[in-house]
Amino acid sequence: MNIITHTTPPYYAVIFTSIKTDSKNYFTVANAVLEEAKKQDGFLGVESVRDEIGISVSYWKDLSSIEAWKNNTLHKNAQQFAKEFYSHFRVRVCKVEKEYGF
Amino acid sequence: MNIITHTTPPYYAVIFTSIKTDSKNYFTVANAVLEEAKKQDGFLGVESVRDEIGISVSYWKDLSSIEAWKNNTLHKNAQQFAKEFYSHFRVRVCKVEKEYGF
Repeated sequence: MNIITHTTPPYYAVIFTSIKTDSKNYFTVANAVLEEAKKQDGFLGVESVRDEIGISVSYWKDLSSIEAWKNNTLHKNAQQFAKEFYSHFRVRVCKVEKEYGF
Repeated sequence: MNIITHTTPPYYAVIFTSIKTDSKNYFTVANAVLEEAKKQDGFLGVESVRDEIGISVSYWKDLSSIEAWKNNTLHKNAQQFAKEFYSHFRVRVCKVEKEYGF
């Protein structure tokens, strides 16, 4: 996993924070969702780390690509497992206004 | 570390992604910065995980609290160590427009 350093505002970020259950199906579904996300129009990249909590930030060209991804069939099927996979989760849709770093 | 579930848009998120060097001074300074951040006006919470990469997301009431935090003396002193502590880092200032979860 690398960090994403080649984006230029304005664009969008979806911050997904979660606490997992010990469901055994999680990794198969999560991996399928990630691979599908990478194929979407407007997808710019993803950064993801898990320890006690998980934080995944995906970057998108605009709100309409996020909306299309939310309604993607594979993604919608996976969303039905939310209560099996997570004891808590939070999705935040954000407009990236400023960015710097090296 | 818990996830932050009690925020209501609009507000701001600062996504800080990084790859650490093996600097021994890192943890002392990072912890001092975190404790100072928690005391700032407009600070709403922080979520942080590190593995191969680190992702820390801090939440703020508005842009002016982020600006004040950027110019905080302890924080500015710590920023001078950026090249010692990180091989890469990226700061993204974002407006949280929408939020859901459980």
